[in-house]
Amino acid sequence: MLSPVTTKNHRLEPLLNPASIAVVGASNNAARIGGMPLAHLTKFGYQGRIYPINPKYEEVFGLRCYADIESIPEAPDLVVLAIAAADVTAMLRRCAAKGARAVIVYAAGFAEEGAKGKLLQDELEAYVATTDMVVAGPNLMGFANLNSQVHTNFASVFNTAPMQSGGGAVSLLTQSGNVCAAVYAIARRLGVEFSHFINTGNEACVDFAQYLEYLAQDDGTEVCMGYIEELRDGPRFIAAAEAFARRDKLLILYKAGETEKGSEAVRSHTSALAGDQQIYSAAFRQLNIIQSNDFVQMAQLAHLAQYRQRTAGKRVAIITISGALGAILADKFIGQGLDVPTLPQALQDTLRAGIPDYGMVSNPVDVTGNVVNDPGFVRTAMEALAQSDAIDAVVVYAPGYMLDRMADDLCAVSQKYPRLFIAIDTGAAQKREQMRAGGVPVFEDIGVAVSAISPFLLWQERRKHNRWLDVRTQPAPQRAALPAVRDEHRIKQLLATYGVPSVAEQIATTADAAVQAADAMGYPVVLKILSQDIAHKTEAGGVKLRLASADQVRSAFDEVMASARAYAPDARIEGVLIQKMESGISELILGATRDPVFGMTLTVGLGGVLTEIYKDVSHRVLPVDEAMARDMLGELKAFALLDGFRGKPKGDVDAACKAIAGFSQAVLALQHEADEIEVNPLLVKQQGSGVCMLDALVIPADGACDNNH
Amino acid sequence: MLSPVTTKNHRLEPLLNPASIAVVGASNNAARIGGMPLAHLTKFGYQGRIYPINPKYEEVFGLRCYADIESIPEAPDLVVLAIAAADVTAMLRRCAAKGARAVIVYAAGFAEEGAKGKLLQDELEAYVATTDMVVAGPNLMGFANLNSQVHTNFASVFNTAPMQSGGGAVSLLTQSGNVCAAVYAIARRLGVEFSHFINTGNEACVDFAQYLEYLAQDDGTEVCMGYIEELRDGPRFIAAAEAFARRDKLLILYKAGETEKGSEAVRSHTSALAGDQQIYSAAFRQLNIIQSNDFVQMAQLAHLAQYRQRTAGKRVAIITISGALGAILADKFIGQGLDVPTLPQALQDTLRAGIPDYGMVSNPVDVTGNVVNDPGFVRTAMEALAQSDAIDAVVVYAPGYMLDRMADDLCAVSQKYPRLFIAIDTGAAQKREQMRAGGVPVFEDIGVAVSAISPFLLWQERRKHNRWLDVRTQPAPQRAALPAVRDEHRIKQLLATYGVPSVAEQIATTADAAVQAADAMGYPVVLKILSQDIAHKTEAGGVKLRLASADQVRSAFDEVMASARAYAPDARIEGVLIQKMESGISELILGATRDPVFGMTLTVGLGGVLTEIYKDVSHRVLPVDEAMARDMLGELKAFALLDGFRGKPKGDVDAACKAIAGFSQAVLALQHEADEIEVNPLLVKQQGSGVCMLDALVIPADGACDNNH
Repeated sequence: MLSPVTTKNHRLEPLLNPASIAVVGASNNAARIGGMPLAHLTKFGYQGRIYPINPKYEEVFGLRCYADIESIPEAPDLVVLAIAAADVTAMLRRCAAKGARAVIVYAAGFAEEGAKGKLLQDELEAYVATTDMVVAGPNLMGFANLNSQVHTNFASVFNTAPMQSGGGAVSLLTQSGNVCAAVYAIARRLGVEFSHFINTGNEACVDFAQYLEYLAQDDGTEVCMGYIEELRDGPRFIAAAEAFARRDKLLILYKAGETEKGSEAVRSHTSALAGDQQIYSAAFRQLNIIQSNDFVQMAQLAHLAQYRQRTAGKRVAIITISGALGAILADKFIGQGLDVPTLPQALQDTLRAGIPDYGMVSNPVDVTGNVVNDPGFVRTAMEALAQSDAIDAVVVYAPGYMLDRMADDLCAVSQKYPRLFIAIDTGAAQKREQMRAGGVPVFEDIGVAVSAISPFLLWQERRKHNRWLDVRTQPAPQRAALPAVRDEHRIKQLLATYGVPSVAEQIATTADAAVQAADAMGYPVVLKILSQDIAHKTEAGGVKLRLASADQVRSAFDEVMASARAYAPDARIEGVLIQKMESGISELILGATRDPVFGMTLTVGLGGVLTEIYKDVSHRVLPVDEAMARDMLGELKAFALLDGFRGKPKGDVDAACKAIAGFSQAVLALQHEADEIEVNPLLVKQQGSGVCMLDALVIPADGACDNNH
Repeated sequence: MLSPVTTKNHRLEPLLNPASIAVVGASNNAARIGGMPLAHLTKFGYQGRIYPINPKYEEVFGLRCYADIESIPEAPDLVVLAIAAADVTAMLRRCAAKGARAVIVYAAGFAEEGAKGKLLQDELEAYVATTDMVVAGPNLMGFANLNSQVHTNFASVFNTAPMQSGGGAVSLLTQSGNVCAAVYAIARRLGVEFSHFINTGNEACVDFAQYLEYLAQDDGTEVCMGYIEELRDGPRFIAAAEAFARRDKLLILYKAGETEKGSEAVRSHTSALAGDQQIYSAAFRQLNIIQSNDFVQMAQLAHLAQYRQRTAGKRVAIITISGALGAILADKFIGQGLDVPTLPQALQDTLRAGIPDYGMVSNPVDVTGNVVNDPGFVRTAMEALAQSDAIDAVVVYAPGYMLDRMADDLCAVSQKYPRLFIAIDTGAAQKREQMRAGGVPVFEDIGVAVSAISPFLLWQERRKHNRWLDVRTQPAPQRAALPAVRDEHRIKQLLATYGVPSVAEQIATTADAAVQAADAMGYPVVLKILSQDIAHKTEAGGVKLRLASADQVRSAFDEVMASARAYAPDARIEGVLIQKMESGISELILGATRDPVFGMTLTVGLGGVLTEIYKDVSHRVLPVDEAMARDMLGELKAFALLDGFRGKPKGDVDAACKAIAGFSQAVLALQHEADEIEVNPLLVKQQGSGVCMLDALVIPADGACDNNH
């Protein structure tokens, strides 16, 4: 069980767990939006006080109906407004006057409906900002708290889906009322029991992250399934998701807009921007949030999460009675990122004692149909599997009749050892409920099973140690300033102070000085024009490579200066840069950009045309440390080029990771000054020989581009 | 309905549709392999004659039991052998003597179990080859023909899964008995009704393709779900799959071994090689076979296939009552390769007449909840959607109560127009069965729906015109011979006769001749050593690029000859090649290799290290024509480089496609002479300027590599 944290002091408490509810625009017709919440409240047994308000009625659903909000006998925790958009703000004033703590606004016709609606919503927001009231919506379907049967919704799904008999621990938090209802219907069909049913509407005053923060604190919520079109407050979302992780709760999120066209469709039906899907996915991974795009998968994960206190991880042993089915399952698990390791010899020997020669003991384990004739062996085998430190979890994939014979042993072993055992029933086992109650989740379809088990076990693996949460606790770097002259050289000097090594280079303003610098540095060298006003150095004839002698440097200096002056007569020219001509194993590009939701993010790739075509890049929300940098490089398909491709030497990956972590610190220090910072390229030399920046640029936060290459 | 074709004359008829069955090793215990087929035959009402054989019994399952096969009163169509491996071949002789037409061998312990079993299987095969008997297995679970209740299996799934009440049109054909049973159980749970249940075992004498050929001819089979570990006869498989396509039947195949480790697991439990997964996938696409790796998806597709005579294709209109759900569905369809086109203005106007302003009419169409209040509009809208030539199919995604109100109109429109309408029910519609019977398939989960609808609509699209089936009907090129000297020049000359243009080039054996050739050709030129004994020309110092003058050619000739002689003193040197120095937009690699299953296959890619890392290649089984070549290039992510990337000129894709089609012809002409033929690179010049081979090599069918580059 979770340690007790209360939501009592959370500002959303009166919204989501009110002791009294008034409904303005009450109706006695259960099909109408002013009637449905009252019908649900009375039907499902809400224990608080209910005040229907409508001058037309004396009574609705057996409750006294009041003429106006002023007439009700107390300041209500919550008022539900089932009235038209145009009347909402005026009514909010009356709610405030009455002392209401929270209000739900059902009405559509606000920001989602063009300029006129936007004005209405602006007015509403401006007014609410002057009050202490919590106002949810507008344009939502309302809430349900299934643990206390608070129904403040007009969701007809509560009429059609069977109501759970007791409490539940799964909350639903969506940016669409219809998605909320659709997922609820599917999950109820699969037996999921709910805590909160929340859809957020236009989020004028309360956004997704605030609800999530509430659910992180809510002891009734162990799992949250969410649906996101656009986050309005990335940092608050990250903090709430972090609270989920720290309290060991499971967060499963569906981010709309997988394809470009899908993003368009999402945008066209809301006022939301779909945002950068890649950055959302990166943030989710960093926070150990399971990203799903399948409602059934979400529901199955919610189920499986009941067993999350059992020990598990990504190394799976598969027990079957069929070589083919075992191979199929192994294939699927591996394809999803799990490991199906060969079992240690001692464990194989233990298994072999009860498995005929034509069975397999390596993993997958094919115990063959004969195993059921030797129940003592089942117990021995399961105990051995429960204790091996070579695996983290055991999946038994068998027909129902065989599971039935193994059920008692499975449950007994699960009681004795903390390891997670999971059953996939290819038939119709009679003892499914016994196994579930005994700590063994049971699936009936391999596809559904894999789609839930794989991300769940990866979640288990990652929750053992979430590096990003640690990195986030480290002190942030001090805010730094950009240099006054933001040329390539000064930017690299600045980045170097954070641990991103620069190529050896020197400024020269005369040909003599250039030669002197080159002599000191050793040939060959590179000579580049240095001017914060010349963005495209190569185009300006401003770059000379592989200069091998003093004479070449001298004439290069003259040529480059002449070319640059001809190319951009008004440019402020600082001189030239003399760089050591370096060569290495490969080049990286490090790009930091400001994401509108999540703030400064980092993209790492190998650069070049093909990388662009293959989109072979890795993203993270900052900060990133060396270990995370290593993960980023490892995600690149082109990592092979750094890792001794075709017998070539390996690149200095350690040095690259150090540089990336340093870059992360630099970007955070400069996050208020710069919108983008790019190192392109970072040359990766042979293992042991380090890395160095060959070029860098910054786009200051005012948006002007002062330097480029 | 399918045109009547009979299986009566097919050699598998006595195996799969016998009029009389003998069971050798009969048991009166329904749990034993000699008892279960008799239990099933009697329980499910097989109408033919049954002869249990076992000297121990007088009667089993109410049937007279015979002492031996010689005693039964007729030559049986089929004998089932429920006896041990060691006794099988001897019993086969007695079956043949009795005049049996077909035999099923259950026993394991043959080729799947090491050297000793392999000997037993060799003996079995050798004997069967001397007879006319059809022998299935060994090592299988047996068959069921559910249309005539022929049960020759010991599959306990027929005891646990509910038996269908009538006939069925879906056949199951698997290379694993356990997979056969598992898929049957899942599909029965989803209501699929079966024709044949076939698992093929070790395929000693009857292979997968022969069963498939039978099912292609079987009027009781409209859909086949298959599971393949390894095909033994690729050409026969292709012919059978082609017969499926031509008879408008749907073939859905699961190929085991998606991941490398999965392939290993498959190999380790059978004697099968998993084969090249990419080539299987290419062949499946070329034959319009739906490839699936999910049993539920297979079953749902089998269901959907009932509606395959309705017109459909990849352009889908989505009708919902929720912008969010519409966007989600559009996103999924687009991600799966379908189109969700913006509807034509006239159709939008028709829809707008009944949809409030806050609804959407472009596609997805959000009719809003109000639509149910205007049933006349539903009919009008559906009729308009049924007639528009801008779309191919209509998917209605709505809660059950709304589908119920639309059901009559949906069915009426489906009766009147051939277009496919599909419903996805987010709730629990009462009229599901009415809709299904009225021509409208109904799904209850969006994930499952998309996973079935998308490949089904793509299948519908492709079946309108399957180019490969046409290409296959064209006459094969005449068999050709390899040149006696298989150097680069002769190979290119040979390929050029099939329409693959070569770079302009000439052999020279003296420096004077080299200069003369270069003068005639125009500078710059390339000079390359020409020797069938020097595989690595560059390594041998045998290539000189960008030669700009007669002097440079002359000294290059001397250098190259000297280097080559020093590098390989014994090499036969034909002289040098003088090639025009060409430049272009991009380079392609065309590689033909012999696949052990499917024969000569073609791989096209852009070559290079990164292409190797990103595996950005396209495969086909030959022959390939120009249109197929265009599809192949279009599948490459790097196609962008040929298509005007970043403002660069476009490559001559037309010429590249012609060259690829010519290469296909050349490879087919040489397929008995060469195991591999490679053009590397094919230089693609600017649009209108053609393509040319810069190098080519062949690996003769004897396996020796005579030339390389």
